[in-house]
Amino acid sequence: MEENWLEIDEFAKSSIKEAGQEIIDSFDEVLKIQTKSNVNDLVTNMDKQIEKLFVEKIKDLFPHHRVMGEEGFGDQVTDMEGTVWIIDPIDGTMNFVHQQRNFAISIGVYHEGKGMLGYIYDVVSDDLYHAKKDEGAYLNGEKLSPLKDVPLEEAILSLNATWLVPNKKVNHEVFVPLVHRVRGTRSYGSAAIELAYIAAGRLDGYITMRLAPWDFAGGKVLIEEVGGVVTDLNGSELSMVNHSPVFAGNPSVHREVQKKYLSKL
Amino acid sequence: MEENWLEIDEFAKSSIKEAGQEIIDSFDEVLKIQTKSNVNDLVTNMDKQIEKLFVEKIKDLFPHHRVMGEEGFGDQVTDMEGTVWIIDPIDGTMNFVHQQRNFAISIGVYHEGKGMLGYIYDVVSDDLYHAKKDEGAYLNGEKLSPLKDVPLEEAILSLNATWLVPNKKVNHEVFVPLVHRVRGTRSYGSAAIELAYIAAGRLDGYITMRLAPWDFAGGKVLIEEVGGVVTDLNGSELSMVNHSPVFAGNPSVHREVQKKYLSKL
Repeated sequence: MEENWLEIDEFAKSSIKEAGQEIIDSFDEVLKIQTKSNVNDLVTNMDKQIEKLFVEKIKDLFPHHRVMGEEGFGDQVTDMEGTVWIIDPIDGTMNFVHQQRNFAISIGVYHEGKGMLGYIYDVVSDDLYHAKKDEGAYLNGEKLSPLKDVPLEEAILSLNATWLVPNKKVNHEVFVPLVHRVRGTRSYGSAAIELAYIAAGRLDGYITMRLAPWDFAGGKVLIEEVGGVVTDLNGSELSMVNHSPVFAGNPSVHREVQKKYLSKL
Repeated sequence: MEENWLEIDEFAKSSIKEAGQEIIDSFDEVLKIQTKSNVNDLVTNMDKQIEKLFVEKIKDLFPHHRVMGEEGFGDQVTDMEGTVWIIDPIDGTMNFVHQQRNFAISIGVYHEGKGMLGYIYDVVSDDLYHAKKDEGAYLNGEKLSPLKDVPLEEAILSLNATWLVPNKKVNHEVFVPLVHRVRGTRSYGSAAIELAYIAAGRLDGYITMRLAPWDFAGGKVLIEEVGGVVTDLNGSELSMVNHSPVFAGNPSVHREVQKKYLSKL
C-alpha cells in the first residue's frame, strides 16, 4: 500500500507535541501530591496513558498500520511487514521519576523493515529531533550537519557505570582501555536522548547492553540520516523485534571501537 | 566591614545573566566559523572574557573584595579573610566545546570563610540556581525543598567512568559494590551542574577526585541550604584554597556512602 509520508509525518509531530504537553501538565499534579509513591503511580499511568493516546489515534487514521509499544497497547509485532510504528512513550523512566526531566518520547515508523521516519522529543527541553529517510535529520526544524570523523582521542563516549563493573551481560574489562583512550565519558540515563545527542554530534559513541526496539527505533533513523551507524556490538544489523545490545556512533568512532575493542568480546 | 548582601546578590544575578547572554551570542559566531580549531580558540577566549568581565565589575563596585577565578584575572587568594568571590566562568569546558550546552557559570561569595551566596547558571537551559546563607536555595526564583533521606537502593549517583577503571587518583574497586547497590548512575561532565542537581534532588550523590574551589564554591552554598552535605572523601570540611576530592550528597546517602564505602579508601 502506498503511504502518504507527509501526512504521517505531520500527524506524528503534532501528536508528539500534544503528548509532551500532557506529560508537562502531569507534573503540576505531582507538585500538588508531593509523595514518592504517588510519583511512581504517576509514571506508570503516564507511560500507559501516552501510549494509549498514540495507539488510538494511529488506529483511527491509519487502520492498516501496526503499533509496537513498550506498554503493550498496540499489536503483537513479530515481523516488520507493512508499516509499523515503534513507540516508547517515556524513555528514561528513572529520570522522569527522579528528575522530572531528561526523558523523551521516541518513535520510529518503519515500512517493510526500513526506517522511514524517526522522532525523539526531549519534552522538558522542548527539543524535537526528527528525520525522514533520505531527507536528513532536524532539530527543531534546523537541519543537522552530517557527522564528521572524530579521532578516538577527541571522542566523547556514553557508557553507563553498570558496564564498567562486573556484571551479567558483558566482560567489563574490554571497556577499560577504551575509557582510558577517549577524551571523556558521559551517561544521561535515556537511550533516546543519548541517540539524539549522537545525531547532533554532541556524543561520538554510545554503548549499552540491552535495549528494546522502542528504545532505539527512532534514534536509528535519526543517526543514519546524518551518516552515523547503529548496530549491535558485532557491527551487525539490529533486529527490530528483539532486545539487543546496541552500539551507536559516528562512522569513524564506530569503525575503530568495533574493530579494536568490541571485537574482543 | 559590614557588607550589603542584598546589593551583592542583585549585582551577582544581573552580571551572571549578562555573562550568559555573551556566551550564547558567541555560539552564533561559532556557527559562522564551523571549524573545530576555532571552537577551541573560542572556549579559551570566552573563559577569559567572562572572568575578566566579573573581575572588573567586582573591583569597581566592591574594591575591598577579592576574587579567585580559574583563569587567574583575579587575586592570588591563599586565605579566606574578608569577602572572597570564587568564580568559574565556564564550568564543563568539554561540554561547552563539544555540545554547546550542559555547562554553567558557577560563583560562590564567601565572608570570613563562610559561604554567604551561591550561584550556578546553566546557561543554555536558562536555569539559575541561587542560595543565600540561612535563607534557602532557589531555582529560577522558586524555593527548593529540603532534601529528604533516600535509601541507597533508590539513590541516583553521579560518578564518572574515569573512577571506575584503574586510575592514578583512587582505588576504583571501592566503587564496585556501590555501583551495584544504587538504583542508577549518571555523569554529566560539569561539576557545577551535578552539584545543582544534588541541590534540586535530581541526584542523590556526586563523587569526584579532583575539583578546584571554583568548581564547588557555588554548589556548596546551594547544597548546604537544602540540608545536603559537601565534604572531601573522608567527610572532612573542604579547603577553599586548594584542590580536593569532593563528595556531595543528600544527608542520608552521604552518611551511609561515607561510612560503608569511602572509609575503605
